[in-house]
Amino acid sequence: MATHHHQNGNGNGNGHAAAEWRFARAAKEGALAAAGDKMSIRAVRFKISASVDARDPRPVLPLAHGDPSVFPAFRTAAEAEDAVAAALRTGKFNCYPAGVGLPDARRALAKHLSRDLPYQLSSDDIFLTAGGTQAIEVVISVLAQPGTNILLPRPGYPNYEARAALSNLEVRRFDLIPEKGWEIDIDSLESIADKNTTAMVIINPNNPCGSVYTREHLAKVAEVARKLGILVIADEVYGNLVFGGSPFIPMGVFGHIAPVLSIGSLSKRWIVPGWRLGWVAICDPKKILQETKASHQYVLNSKFLYVCVCVCIITSITNFLNVSTDPATFIQGALPQILENTKEDFFKRIIGLLEETSEICYREIKDIKCITCPHKPEGSMFVMVKLNLYLLEGIHDDIDFCCKLAKEESVILCPGSVLGMENWIRITFAIDSSSLLDGLERIKSFCQRHKKKNPLNGF
Amino acid sequence: MATHHHQNGNGNGNGHAAAEWRFARAAKEGALAAAGDKMSIRAVRFKISASVDARDPRPVLPLAHGDPSVFPAFRTAAEAEDAVAAALRTGKFNCYPAGVGLPDARRALAKHLSRDLPYQLSSDDIFLTAGGTQAIEVVISVLAQPGTNILLPRPGYPNYEARAALSNLEVRRFDLIPEKGWEIDIDSLESIADKNTTAMVIINPNNPCGSVYTREHLAKVAEVARKLGILVIADEVYGNLVFGGSPFIPMGVFGHIAPVLSIGSLSKRWIVPGWRLGWVAICDPKKILQETKASHQYVLNSKFLYVCVCVCIITSITNFLNVSTDPATFIQGALPQILENTKEDFFKRIIGLLEETSEICYREIKDIKCITCPHKPEGSMFVMVKLNLYLLEGIHDDIDFCCKLAKEESVILCPGSVLGMENWIRITFAIDSSSLLDGLERIKSFCQRHKKKNPLNGF
Repeated sequence: MATHHHQNGNGNGNGHAAAEWRFARAAKEGALAAAGDKMSIRAVRFKISASVDARDPRPVLPLAHGDPSVFPAFRTAAEAEDAVAAALRTGKFNCYPAGVGLPDARRALAKHLSRDLPYQLSSDDIFLTAGGTQAIEVVISVLAQPGTNILLPRPGYPNYEARAALSNLEVRRFDLIPEKGWEIDIDSLESIADKNTTAMVIINPNNPCGSVYTREHLAKVAEVARKLGILVIADEVYGNLVFGGSPFIPMGVFGHIAPVLSIGSLSKRWIVPGWRLGWVAICDPKKILQETKASHQYVLNSKFLYVCVCVCIITSITNFLNVSTDPATFIQGALPQILENTKEDFFKRIIGLLEETSEICYREIKDIKCITCPHKPEGSMFVMVKLNLYLLEGIHDDIDFCCKLAKEESVILCPGSVLGMENWIRITFAIDSSSLLDGLERIKSFCQRHKKKNPLNGF
Repeated sequence: MATHHHQNGNGNGNGHAAAEWRFARAAKEGALAAAGDKMSIRAVRFKISASVDARDPRPVLPLAHGDPSVFPAFRTAAEAEDAVAAALRTGKFNCYPAGVGLPDARRALAKHLSRDLPYQLSSDDIFLTAGGTQAIEVVISVLAQPGTNILLPRPGYPNYEARAALSNLEVRRFDLIPEKGWEIDIDSLESIADKNTTAMVIINPNNPCGSVYTREHLAKVAEVARKLGILVIADEVYGNLVFGGSPFIPMGVFGHIAPVLSIGSLSKRWIVPGWRLGWVAICDPKKILQETKASHQYVLNSKFLYVCVCVCIITSITNFLNVSTDPATFIQGALPQILENTKEDFFKRIIGLLEETSEICYREIKDIKCITCPHKPEGSMFVMVKLNLYLLEGIHDDIDFCCKLAKEESVILCPGSVLGMENWIRITFAIDSSSLLDGLERIKSFCQRHKKKNPLNGF
């Protein structure tokens, strides 16, 4: 090992004894570094963005991530902005919030979410988090115990994998089937689960695929979860952002079949990912997870172990949030007004915009030979397309495609590799339509330029 | 194990097969639950608050935690509030922030912190976090590796212990000496550290003791850290809040002796803990932790291992923040204006208030026989007092004292047990002076009422 005085004259005769810097050991490349470096969608985005040629006079077009907030057409509702400004101006919300969220905010959200459920949530069912990101963190952290595993969709959202890696939670993947509208391969769930499986994740409306699951499909998912005895983590951060045939059905509708932890956020529906307000809602009408006075009955019935541990998932969430950061208090303070005052017109306008851009995206992609879209998007902000590498010259894989596209055309896309599907690409249509058209045109030029002369040689 | 249909008619003939709920296993009481439940200062606060008798017509007086924001006299600077409102109203900061913070905010903070250092920080040295809480999380998480340990002060701030428990990082404690103005027992550091020790934490101005370390003491700490080869984590969230003889000296002043990670926040100095904006500043003028072109030199010098791993602490912080939540973007966006526009008058006024209330607190405590204050507070928002249990009848320990005081007098204090010092009590004086006087008067009444008739019997 080196001593500390080898650098910049650190041992330049000022009388300090030489020492081995011991923290060197702590920072070795481990699960932490791997989790962040390899799996973070942001880290890959930075890499691809770095490929952009600064000499290109054209604007850089961000078609990789679901954040259209910078485009004037996608500006958040004035009522929501007013509510936050008003809460700030009261001066009453500069204080620390309670660990699980302000009571009024929890109550308002419970009421809001209950409108789409066949039962009422109470404020105790709501845990406010610093965005969907922290909601994922808390759910994965409380489920991670030595020997257990969790089922994640492929393609999926990489933060689940990163958090599982940080918590040493084993991940098993099930496929979403492009030919079936990206439905879950339900039969495979039973084959990959075992007695140590504790939960599965379903993302609906789906990121990255743009699909929206039908009531029938969700019911099947609940039934298989019940059969396997696992929790359903329903990532519904794109909830309500639907514009195809299927309405958005919250997974909590099936909470009587299997307990559901629903993850939500203001980020997408209100187009304010920077406000960092999300939640975990416990959708468990049969109170399987919740401590009740009645639980003593089961203690007497020798069901003590069961009741005890079920209490603890909710207790664990509370404990975890008590030592974790929180959403800004005044944004929590504004939540009741945000939920109550935001007009239906705003939501309709945003959905109208997304419907329009999704149509443009789907139509233009058909014209680009090197990518194929198996399913027209019906929700969220994304579509997955297959990269037809055999039609391209000198493009090795999806990451190579994205880096070269960024370099030559200043268009940023998200490679499927970071979502678990190599040689697919995720494109967002949540961007103003002229930028989207421009971006798709540049992708077309890129593909033309890199077209293989005789594609059959590629086989 | 129980089956899922034993409760609330879950198996009421609707045709579902009975299943063992497997997630029960995941939630067993483990490090997570223990970390949250036993160590969270908030959890204990809730317990003590729950002791308050709702029939008491007097106001509940919160003398437990450092958050005076609800008192009009402690309202934050108008310039800071204006800056946040203005950033929100631009509509430009609704987007996701970069994982490590907005470039302009990092740059402004680097400049601001550099004013008190003998060298310049660059924006690359600044990592914005969602409050000091997330700063602690990231620092502890990146240092936690199997087999390593960290040195924490006793008494201390319980979030360090909670985060270490979550990360399976071994904690070793060193004492702060009440008779020496709560200075660190520096000699003991060498006896508790070993080759697996990676860092020590110093809190200055000190929570919970209200002490402010002299330049000489900080220099000694840096020297011993250098000798031990460990990082110094300097928790400076109460930075600049000093009103005794000692000025606030940032630990980074000694960064040339041992690398310092300084944790800071807007929460205390601006009285806005609810805004959740904190930071980690890398104070390492010799670039021991930072990747530089010059590092190749040391590779050739067979110092490769050293240089390589040192790069990684900063990389690990970046990676960790890339998969973690962030401070709200518009609050980050406001940071340059908050730092630039807040007038010296505001800081002077807040420090004047704290000086006044600390004097009241120290004076009145002298009049309460059952508690003793060994050192007059000179900074932060707290004072530690020793509980003289032998003078009290029927009070078992500090938590018992706090619960009964809450019940009988509606005054909330923080028991020393959660800070690592049983039978001590932390009192905050960061509250308006009439409430403080009222609270200390109630503590006096309580002690009078519970006075032992013949205290010598207690020995």
